[in-house]
Amino acid sequence: MIKQVKHIEQYQHIVAQEIETFINSLPLQPEGLYEPVRYLLASEGKRIRPTLVLMACNMFSGSCQAARKPAIAFEVFHNFTLAHDDLMDQSPLRRGRATVHIHWNPNTAILSGDAMNILTYSLFEDLPAETLKKILPLFNRTALEICEGQQLDMEYESRNNVTAEEYLNMIRLKTSVLLAASLKTGAIIGGAPEALTEQLYDFGIAMGLAFQLQDDYLDAFGGNETFGKRIGGDIISNKKTMLLIQALNSPNPAIAQAVNALISNEAPDPQKKVEQMLNLYQEAGVKDTTRELISAHYNQALHILESLDTDTQKKQGLYELADMLRERKK
Amino acid sequence: MIKQVKHIEQYQHIVAQEIETFINSLPLQPEGLYEPVRYLLASEGKRIRPTLVLMACNMFSGSCQAARKPAIAFEVFHNFTLAHDDLMDQSPLRRGRATVHIHWNPNTAILSGDAMNILTYSLFEDLPAETLKKILPLFNRTALEICEGQQLDMEYESRNNVTAEEYLNMIRLKTSVLLAASLKTGAIIGGAPEALTEQLYDFGIAMGLAFQLQDDYLDAFGGNETFGKRIGGDIISNKKTMLLIQALNSPNPAIAQAVNALISNEAPDPQKKVEQMLNLYQEAGVKDTTRELISAHYNQALHILESLDTDTQKKQGLYELADMLRERKK
Repeated sequence: MIKQVKHIEQYQHIVAQEIETFINSLPLQPEGLYEPVRYLLASEGKRIRPTLVLMACNMFSGSCQAARKPAIAFEVFHNFTLAHDDLMDQSPLRRGRATVHIHWNPNTAILSGDAMNILTYSLFEDLPAETLKKILPLFNRTALEICEGQQLDMEYESRNNVTAEEYLNMIRLKTSVLLAASLKTGAIIGGAPEALTEQLYDFGIAMGLAFQLQDDYLDAFGGNETFGKRIGGDIISNKKTMLLIQALNSPNPAIAQAVNALISNEAPDPQKKVEQMLNLYQEAGVKDTTRELISAHYNQALHILESLDTDTQKKQGLYELADMLRERKK
Repeated sequence: MIKQVKHIEQYQHIVAQEIETFINSLPLQPEGLYEPVRYLLASEGKRIRPTLVLMACNMFSGSCQAARKPAIAFEVFHNFTLAHDDLMDQSPLRRGRATVHIHWNPNTAILSGDAMNILTYSLFEDLPAETLKKILPLFNRTALEICEGQQLDMEYESRNNVTAEEYLNMIRLKTSVLLAASLKTGAIIGGAPEALTEQLYDFGIAMGLAFQLQDDYLDAFGGNETFGKRIGGDIISNKKTMLLIQALNSPNPAIAQAVNALISNEAPDPQKKVEQMLNLYQEAGVKDTTRELISAHYNQALHILESLDTDTQKKQGLYELADMLRERKK
């Protein structure tokens, strides 16, 4: 177990080094443009996307040297989307710190975000020509899908008839495709056969769906200590999660009506609202169906990984990541 | 003369066709994401950047077929910067139509702009691998410089001690580098020797500076009919133009003080303000110095074009464009 965690940590160490190199390579002026980029990247998130790039590359190549900068590209791009999403969603906090549009102002979040979108592409410049030619279309399609996911997410906030299928498609676009593309990019740089790059992509999609659904689940049923987030935050803010969508679509009209009434009440007592909604979730059976859905995607991811035709030792890092996901589960 | 204009029109015809092809290739859904992209690109601006790409490519290659999509990339990117700049600057109108954040809302301007930034890169995907490898770093550097230019432009709005040198650097970043990169990209695709691609880049820089300075000049001294814009708009809004910056930096302290007083007056009569500022510009001699500066950059551009070691016939389009610029001048 200790050895396993060390496996991930090795990659995370490389990622941290490479991010520092990138931060130090940024121009100092104009400070108003580049300081927010440094601020965002210095914030230590899980940095899961660059870790996936390096792991996937290492599965097929003796070295992940060529994947270092492209790995950082995925972290820079992810942080760009956070800066713009947080502005659009008017979120004041991210990873416990003020978001860019709060710490500076909305224009800074827009323009520094744009710079990060462009800097992402600059981190692909050193790839061999033929590799670049393969990765650019993959990255462009992925980046555009993420925009589509954010658009749908915003549209769904004002719709009460979102289906589970629509929701799954939205989180696939907003979350899964970037994880999947991280893996595929690393595999391409590592020289993997095309069929295996596709399998890793599919593994990333399944893992991303399980991860996002688990986020929804833990907000309601996680318990404070494990998840480090206030329980019921999504319920209080009427966030369209898989739980809420299933409850709204409950075949039992009494439950659907009660859920609708609860989210339509403009000034409810937050604690009561959470309690009542959790009861409704219980009645609607969405706790179980969501847990089953998470397991299904998680098992699909594991199944793809098992069937992947490569050295078991090389898959260790990805198993560890899947384990980490499993550990978060209550 | 008629033949000359037809030369440009031929390219513009190709550009219009190619933009239509691009618009038709965009996904229909989510409509909220892609409709603003169509709206912006359907607005007929001068489309000077894609025209430059095609012209430069044609100078060195019998066909500009391979440059068609990359040409549109420059128009898409330019429109992305307009959408975000107009939001940041809170401009309600562009080319006589409502800007995206007014016609829709700020979030739409942010997200559709982001999509256009990404779509720009997708228009480079079909380039041969080695060409792509050359063009990507050029485009990334250029795109980042444009962000830097916008940042400086916003910073300068709240500073009264901007120097002429700082201003020239800002408009080089905000305007010239994209024109220069359009030419260089077309030339690279056309297979031009590196030295010539650099010369075309320098031609673009000089032409861009002349063009932007002329914009400043015509706002004050253009006469309504020629320029199609309200005379003195920049003066009324205290926009930091080359004229205002030179007047603020006048060695005559009485003039500098009077200019300062005029821009500090919070509720002046617009017509009187324009009259008084034009008088101060006259006294400070900035009409002449700006006209000389425009001529210097224009002549530098022509000089580079003349010395360019290629068939004179092939340069015709660029001479025409330089002429068009000259024609706008009063």
